[in-house]
Amino acid sequence: MTYTTGILIFDKLEELDAIGPWEVFTMAAEVRGSGKVVTISQHGGMVKCAKGLRIEADHSFETAPPLDIILVPGGMGTRTEVDNKAVIDWIAKVAPGCTWVTSVCTGSMLLIEAGPARGKRVTTHWAFVETLRERGGAAEVVDDMRFVRDGNVVSSAGVSAGIDMSLWLIGQTDSPAFARDAQKRIEYDPAPPYTAAV
Amino acid sequence: MTYTTGILIFDKLEELDAIGPWEVFTMAAEVRGSGKVVTISQHGGMVKCAKGLRIEADHSFETAPPLDIILVPGGMGTRTEVDNKAVIDWIAKVAPGCTWVTSVCTGSMLLIEAGPARGKRVTTHWAFVETLRERGGAAEVVDDMRFVRDGNVVSSAGVSAGIDMSLWLIGQTDSPAFARDAQKRIEYDPAPPYTAAV
Repeated sequence: MTYTTGILIFDKLEELDAIGPWEVFTMAAEVRGSGKVVTISQHGGMVKCAKGLRIEADHSFETAPPLDIILVPGGMGTRTEVDNKAVIDWIAKVAPGCTWVTSVCTGSMLLIEAGPARGKRVTTHWAFVETLRERGGAAEVVDDMRFVRDGNVVSSAGVSAGIDMSLWLIGQTDSPAFARDAQKRIEYDPAPPYTAAV
Repeated sequence: MTYTTGILIFDKLEELDAIGPWEVFTMAAEVRGSGKVVTISQHGGMVKCAKGLRIEADHSFETAPPLDIILVPGGMGTRTEVDNKAVIDWIAKVAPGCTWVTSVCTGSMLLIEAGPARGKRVTTHWAFVETLRERGGAAEVVDDMRFVRDGNVVSSAGVSAGIDMSLWLIGQTDSPAFARDAQKRIEYDPAPPYTAAV
């Protein structure tokens, strides 16, 4: 399948929220031999992430190509961007043309604000669940899933959960066997070292 | 603990190799309230990663601060950098002053070439194990571990394995309980979606 995935980036986005899915989607494009993944910021140019990493956007809102998948990451920056009319309007404009509308962490707040996740079941970072419930707009804010699908909206829990969600998504756009192959290429056979009490 | 972690970046490094550990180490610094994490490239300025992400380095070799931990990621770029005398000499110069010398994926090849991992047990991406064995220089190239520690050299398997290694490392520099707290903040409770046959 040939499709374009756009990852929204903005100041103070959480690094792994965006780069986990970036790795999965770009690996999928490489294996598949088609499709592309681009980063998009409001004005183009440099974005400074929540932990200080500086990433240069591939596109501004003006130069962004048509998207099949949009991904909105989280991070402290979402608290500002949720009130940034240009960003919310852009998501509202682009999302209806996408096959899949996705978020990681607190990015689901932007999908609710912009419309695509309004009235839907979503999830977010565990530490943000209560805040998002109080904010309203979603049908339900789920607190015990790696990611939640409601129609074509797929929201992930915090930070690293975007990796699981992205792998699931390429299993849908391509096939589960394809997703397992991409998973093997990023050697995603996770083993957190201190899971048991030490 | 206050310490500085330096992540070497270069053209065609694999994105998640560097940003997985970046997320863990920067989250640790934030929770701890001390320590910093910097990206370092040969000349400073912009680096274009293996899948096209553009990252701006915090430092060049000339401006880099003294490091306590060095991390060398992998990616296709390591095939070029292993013959880049400036990079190999820099690693050889900096590593002896570090408490921990670490790699992700094919980054272990650079640690062998530069000296710190020579004669040690290491690991690498599963698809690179045979190549690294044939190349020689390590005591053993292990193929069934998420990461391998030999003295103060810690090498990870491919791409996502750097997350597990970094969490283990902050468990050593701080404590396992501290590492579990950082793990919770990045919601690293991984659940690959297609692990079972579908």
